[in-house]
Amino acid sequence: MNKLALDELLRRALIEDIGAGDLAGEAIFAEEDTAAGYLIAKQALILAGTAVFARTFALLDERVNVAFDYADGDKVEKGQRFARIEGPTQSLLAGERVALNLLQHMTGIATETNRYAAACGGHRALVVDTRKTLPGLRMLQKYAVTVGGGKNHRFGLDSMVMIKDNHIKAAGGILPAVARARAKVSPFVKIEVEVEDLEQVKQALQAGADVIMLDNMDLPMIETAVRLIDRRALVEVSGNVTLERVAALAATGVDIISSGALTHSVKAADISLRLI
Amino acid sequence: MNKLALDELLRRALIEDIGAGDLAGEAIFAEEDTAAGYLIAKQALILAGTAVFARTFALLDERVNVAFDYADGDKVEKGQRFARIEGPTQSLLAGERVALNLLQHMTGIATETNRYAAACGGHRALVVDTRKTLPGLRMLQKYAVTVGGGKNHRFGLDSMVMIKDNHIKAAGGILPAVARARAKVSPFVKIEVEVEDLEQVKQALQAGADVIMLDNMDLPMIETAVRLIDRRALVEVSGNVTLERVAALAATGVDIISSGALTHSVKAADISLRLI
Amino acid sequence: MNKLALDELLRRALIEDIGAGDLAGEAIFAEEDTAAGYLIAKQALILAGTAVFARTFALLDERVNVAFDYADGDKVEKGQRFARIEGPTQSLLAGERVALNLLQHMTGIATETNRYAAACGGHRALVVDTRKTLPGLRMLQKYAVTVGGGKNHRFGLDSMVMIKDNHIKAAGGILPAVARARAKVSPFVKIEVEVEDLEQVKQALQAGADVIMLDNMDLPMIETAVRLIDRRALVEVSGNVTLERVAALAATGVDIISSGALTHSVKAADISLRLI
Amino acid sequence: MNKLALDELLRRALIEDIGAGDLAGEAIFAEEDTAAGYLIAKQALILAGTAVFARTFALLDERVNVAFDYADGDKVEKGQRFARIEGPTQSLLAGERVALNLLQHMTGIATETNRYAAACGGHRALVVDTRKTLPGLRMLQKYAVTVGGGKNHRFGLDSMVMIKDNHIKAAGGILPAVARARAKVSPFVKIEVEVEDLEQVKQALQAGADVIMLDNMDLPMIETAVRLIDRRALVEVSGNVTLERVAALAATGVDIISSGALTHSVKAADISLRLI
Amino acid sequence: MNKLALDELLRRALIEDIGAGDLAGEAIFAEEDTAAGYLIAKQALILAGTAVFARTFALLDERVNVAFDYADGDKVEKGQRFARIEGPTQSLLAGERVALNLLQHMTGIATETNRYAAACGGHRALVVDTRKTLPGLRMLQKYAVTVGGGKNHRFGLDSMVMIKDNHIKAAGGILPAVARARAKVSPFVKIEVEVEDLEQVKQALQAGADVIMLDNMDLPMIETAVRLIDRRALVEVSGNVTLERVAALAATGVDIISSGALTHSVKAADISLRLI
Amino acid sequence: MNKLALDELLRRALIEDIGAGDLAGEAIFAEEDTAAGYLIAKQALILAGTAVFARTFALLDERVNVAFDYADGDKVEKGQRFARIEGPTQSLLAGERVALNLLQHMTGIATETNRYAAACGGHRALVVDTRKTLPGLRMLQKYAVTVGGGKNHRFGLDSMVMIKDNHIKAAGGILPAVARARAKVSPFVKIEVEVEDLEQVKQALQAGADVIMLDNMDLPMIETAVRLIDRRALVEVSGNVTLERVAALAATGVDIISSGALTHSVKAADISLRLI
Repeated sequence: MNKLALDELLRRALIEDIGAGDLAGEAIFAEEDTAAGYLIAKQALILAGTAVFARTFALLDERVNVAFDYADGDKVEKGQRFARIEGPTQSLLAGERVALNLLQHMTGIATETNRYAAACGGHRALVVDTRKTLPGLRMLQKYAVTVGGGKNHRFGLDSMVMIKDNHIKAAGGILPAVARARAKVSPFVKIEVEVEDLEQVKQALQAGADVIMLDNMDLPMIETAVRLIDRRALVEVSGNVTLERVAALAATGVDIISSGALTHSVKAADISLRLI
Repeated sequence: MNKLALDELLRRALIEDIGAGDLAGEAIFAEEDTAAGYLIAKQALILAGTAVFARTFALLDERVNVAFDYADGDKVEKGQRFARIEGPTQSLLAGERVALNLLQHMTGIATETNRYAAACGGHRALVVDTRKTLPGLRMLQKYAVTVGGGKNHRFGLDSMVMIKDNHIKAAGGILPAVARARAKVSPFVKIEVEVEDLEQVKQALQAGADVIMLDNMDLPMIETAVRLIDRRALVEVSGNVTLERVAALAATGVDIISSGALTHSVKAADISLRLI
Repeated sequence: MNKLALDELLRRALIEDIGAGDLAGEAIFAEEDTAAGYLIAKQALILAGTAVFARTFALLDERVNVAFDYADGDKVEKGQRFARIEGPTQSLLAGERVALNLLQHMTGIATETNRYAAACGGHRALVVDTRKTLPGLRMLQKYAVTVGGGKNHRFGLDSMVMIKDNHIKAAGGILPAVARARAKVSPFVKIEVEVEDLEQVKQALQAGADVIMLDNMDLPMIETAVRLIDRRALVEVSGNVTLERVAALAATGVDIISSGALTHSVKAADISLRLI
Repeated sequence: MNKLALDELLRRALIEDIGAGDLAGEAIFAEEDTAAGYLIAKQALILAGTAVFARTFALLDERVNVAFDYADGDKVEKGQRFARIEGPTQSLLAGERVALNLLQHMTGIATETNRYAAACGGHRALVVDTRKTLPGLRMLQKYAVTVGGGKNHRFGLDSMVMIKDNHIKAAGGILPAVARARAKVSPFVKIEVEVEDLEQVKQALQAGADVIMLDNMDLPMIETAVRLIDRRALVEVSGNVTLERVAALAATGVDIISSGALTHSVKAADISLRLI
Repeated sequence: MNKLALDELLRRALIEDIGAGDLAGEAIFAEEDTAAGYLIAKQALILAGTAVFARTFALLDERVNVAFDYADGDKVEKGQRFARIEGPTQSLLAGERVALNLLQHMTGIATETNRYAAACGGHRALVVDTRKTLPGLRMLQKYAVTVGGGKNHRFGLDSMVMIKDNHIKAAGGILPAVARARAKVSPFVKIEVEVEDLEQVKQALQAGADVIMLDNMDLPMIETAVRLIDRRALVEVSGNVTLERVAALAATGVDIISSGALTHSVKAADISLRLI
Repeated sequence: MNKLALDELLRRALIEDIGAGDLAGEAIFAEEDTAAGYLIAKQALILAGTAVFARTFALLDERVNVAFDYADGDKVEKGQRFARIEGPTQSLLAGERVALNLLQHMTGIATETNRYAAACGGHRALVVDTRKTLPGLRMLQKYAVTVGGGKNHRFGLDSMVMIKDNHIKAAGGILPAVARARAKVSPFVKIEVEVEDLEQVKQALQAGADVIMLDNMDLPMIETAVRLIDRRALVEVSGNVTLERVAALAATGVDIISSGALTHSVKAADISLRLI
């Protein structure tokens, strides 16, 4: 994770939430009042975002101490207290909501990703995210996916070539599309082609695609495509990927199962910060 | 909505997604290529974010035209095409993901909020959001709640006084806590007290709270509290608010039903942008 | 006060003043040179901005120590030394002007506000500011008003509804204007109506305005309005508010006396920083 | 003026004032409603900030038209309408306060500066500002000073060398201080020495100072200093400069009369924006 | 190229150069004065940065027109006029230096890269840049490399894995280092290993490196390595890459020749903007 | 140097280079791993940028220690180790490239400037830079010039008046151009006139220019101009300034020799950071 980019994100988030100041906290507590509290899991979860949680308070007030008993990626059982926090009360109250919103969001992603990854069983398939992330939060969301046992698809439009239907039409076919991309981009950049049928799979192979994405295919067609490709390219499946379907998809022998829902439809993990 | 704040958010989001440039788009399309497409609803939805969607493209390229057939707040049926877009292909591809991510997120919020609001039936209860929003997206999320028929709770720590358990303890009771806040803050700012039992309800009333939040109470206790308060303060219920429970909560006569899930656990609406 | 928003403001201010570097300080002093100094009041004043003053130097150089003998809100007599500062000379010189400009400005506001508040005598009237603040400095200016014994009017356009002449005309009257606002905004937001005569006062009351602003009325009409409203809404007077007139305004029984001059026409407090 | 720096300042100012949106404007007016209005001078004034006023609205909405009948530097009489504005009502209301706050502030500076400049009569003395400006507003304040007939002192610490008491002590005298500065800084940068008596005037002359600042001297001593310096350096007077004293100061033959009050204690010009 | 990131860079650059305003331009020209001019090549060059040049003026003033007779990547002969510009004189003068500084810098990079690329003759070798770029200018510098006929190495630390000496030591060898990286990073990311002798080449091959970088090897060892690798990985040479040595390096059959000097030691192209 | 402006530049540079995180460093090293290294000069150089180098790491991680054995401006011989660094390995790797890119760039400038300054021999001529700097890096580049023994020309368009050919034409001659500028700008600002022949030199003198820039003149004409001007104005030569020509230019008696190449065509100094 990029610490300086994280700081920018957190400063903006804190300014968004605190506005011109915490009316209640400043009215009722004195600068020197201190408090302590703990984080408790109200569901079983895969923890993600501990450094983000701690850094939120550090930016507000160096005197706040946060100590986690678990690390990112650890499983925490329902009912478990897993972190302690103490420091000036005004700062705890000012940072609490932003820190918790992010921790719950990231932990929600890691927990769900972990379910998908577990569903792949012993198969080679990796669970990966997409660019369907929430604007401004991509770095944190993609990090949480890796914490949950998934991998990241390209970070943005500049980190890989993805050739889709309209690129193919514009270029006059998969071969010329890949050729045009190969001629232009760096030799370090992988080229992926999104295909819809087996004929396109063959063309993508012939074009030398590094990754072939099977878009919205049914299981038998996926199996055929995997055999056809025969490890000459990475095989990704995408579209209609649900937790229920992951095991069957993984069993087809694909390399990559990508899911936008991991980041675009996140259920926040149920975590409470209780001050005592 | 604040247009200049929106522009800042969108510029950051586009820079996050585009990085150093769209490798595929720049390799395969020429500057002068144009394309057109449409948005289609793949589920029934309450539309939210039309201006955000359009502005995303406008920031990239003034030549992109976006025309919506529906406005924010309108219901769009599953299968309905509801907007057209046309312009330079490179710009459509560069802006597509950010625009769509936001539209799906905001529409998801409005659609879910609308279900909550509908569940209130003819009762006075208003559905409101909380500060449990995704960092950086609060303005858009809260706007989407209003589009769906909900109302906004305080925007941040500076716009209202919320007196909770720890404030009460620190001040030595609800009365001194409210008194201390009243003495400090503006006469224009409302003071809300979070209470856990009927005894605290009485104290909050006595203290002159503008709003009394009944935290995690069961239905009978809520009904008693509503009668006790008797319109002398706004009554908010919070905690364990699910779509299933909203109708019953509304029937108790409360003024406000607040739900963090509306913004912290959003299911993106299923919308496709299809280029033709 | 929002510490992170303050830091942004101070960083910008220091970059504005220092530019590419302090030519004189860097030419004449060595990095390791240190100096000390003190702040002296050259007029009687109500101190405001001590944390802002100290933070300015802290952002430049952690080695600078600032110690105030008085706190925000304290009265300091003319001739009194009220703070000591010591640290690297180059940092003292680089931060001096920004720190002092803000301290003098904020103290000027607090001192003047205090005069207005004192003039209210034993009456219920509160002195409040307006949105007539200096762009970029609103948080500091409004904070200084509270230090001086005043209260803050709405922070911005998003924190309250103020219905003025043109809103009333557009809506077709005070009643429909208030109704339209009430239907749209949050139940936590107060609605204020600006009125020009007693007929409008009655309409505002009938519309259920939370606050009624008597715009530019003479004292007798204000007294009549106060009696008419009879505590059913907060009563604010605005327009032609001068220090000379405050006592008479307060004596009418209004709740709020608002003055733009407190923030738009500030006389800087006379404070010197003397290095020794 | 730097247009891009102005845009940054105005965007921040508008975001500060509008927050998450204009509650009243969005509730009561429709997007397509339009309005018109005019600016009226409620005091005689020297106009400053017309481009700033117009640009504020342009950043919000290109459809707003602003037409000034007078230019920066023109005198506008009390009661004169001097500009018209028309456009979407929501945008007029959203931009009105920021635009007006800046116009009144800048015009206030220009009007007061103009009084100082007029008081110099036929003498050579120029009225100049200082670094005692309001943080974030220096460019606008210094521009307004020039509009009023004044000149700008150094913009910041990097644009000139000002040798004060503590520099002199650290360097071991005026001569070594000036020598050290001359050796370090660019040949294009002027060096000014602040002096407190005639002996120091002589040393500053001998050191080859480009400008000699007579700090808090009485009129006879200033006259002696001017004769002593005899145009071999620019002569600046500073400290205890009031409008009443300017004529006498100018009559001594000094080149520059600098006043911090021009920018640190500004009285906003009385201007109204009336929508019709 | 990312247009929004470019705008941010240009706004900062213009603010850096213009400061509080163009003293000479504002003193001597009127707002309505216009001028025209042209760009002339004072050396043979490969043009790069035309859109950057034009955008610089567009950000300042929409009325400036820039028309290039050549496109990025075109060769322009010495003495050739290759673009015309016209618009308000003040804006031409305010933008001239930033626009020209960037055009000369980018064209300098493209021109030199082109020499390197040409020196590769008919060999497969591609000329690529490194991360040795000038902070803040990476996007523009890397773009200019591609314009000159080169390719880009990884954009930053997040776009590829580069395993160097200290990674190898920490992991206990090339095999465990690659294995550890492979286990952690996305399947879309290429892994490159920097090697210093043939034994390490073998280990890198065995580890399944996608790219093997031969660091500072002499030509015979490079040839041996190329044969040994035999197209099972991309072969990059780096270190001591000069224009004189490129042909010989390319003749060894390597895939990639990387040079930091292309971006860290740029000679600005000699281009003049002449106003007429 | 302005430390806060430096921090902004470094944060942007680090975010540019690190992106979403250091893939290799995070995959292979643990948070607690530490490393040490040193900087070694691979050429003789004049060191510049030590504080910039150290600050880069400090922004990433306070635990990194950097100790230089030499200061800015010192000569370091080829082969000399001149600094040690130690700290968490992940932070050393994350900051290394940005820190080194800047150190090499600044040292390259100082080293080359030093050659120019040395070539001036015992003459009065000062070597100065221009506005031909790399956008975003002006403060660092100009600082490096002073470290190398040069001086800075104006920082930007707001710090001095430079009257060129087109200003002269627009104003109707050198005299009216200077007069117009003098009337408008501050008395603290120097006015420079660019001249092309001796007739213009005379006019510039008559106009009272503070600095006269002899543009692209040959040596005899420069000598004549110097005699003509006779110390009544500073004399600057510009255009076709190469290291080979500096000695001859200095011998003509000019005050200032300005060179754009010092900052627009920098050869990075050869410095290695070796981790051990």
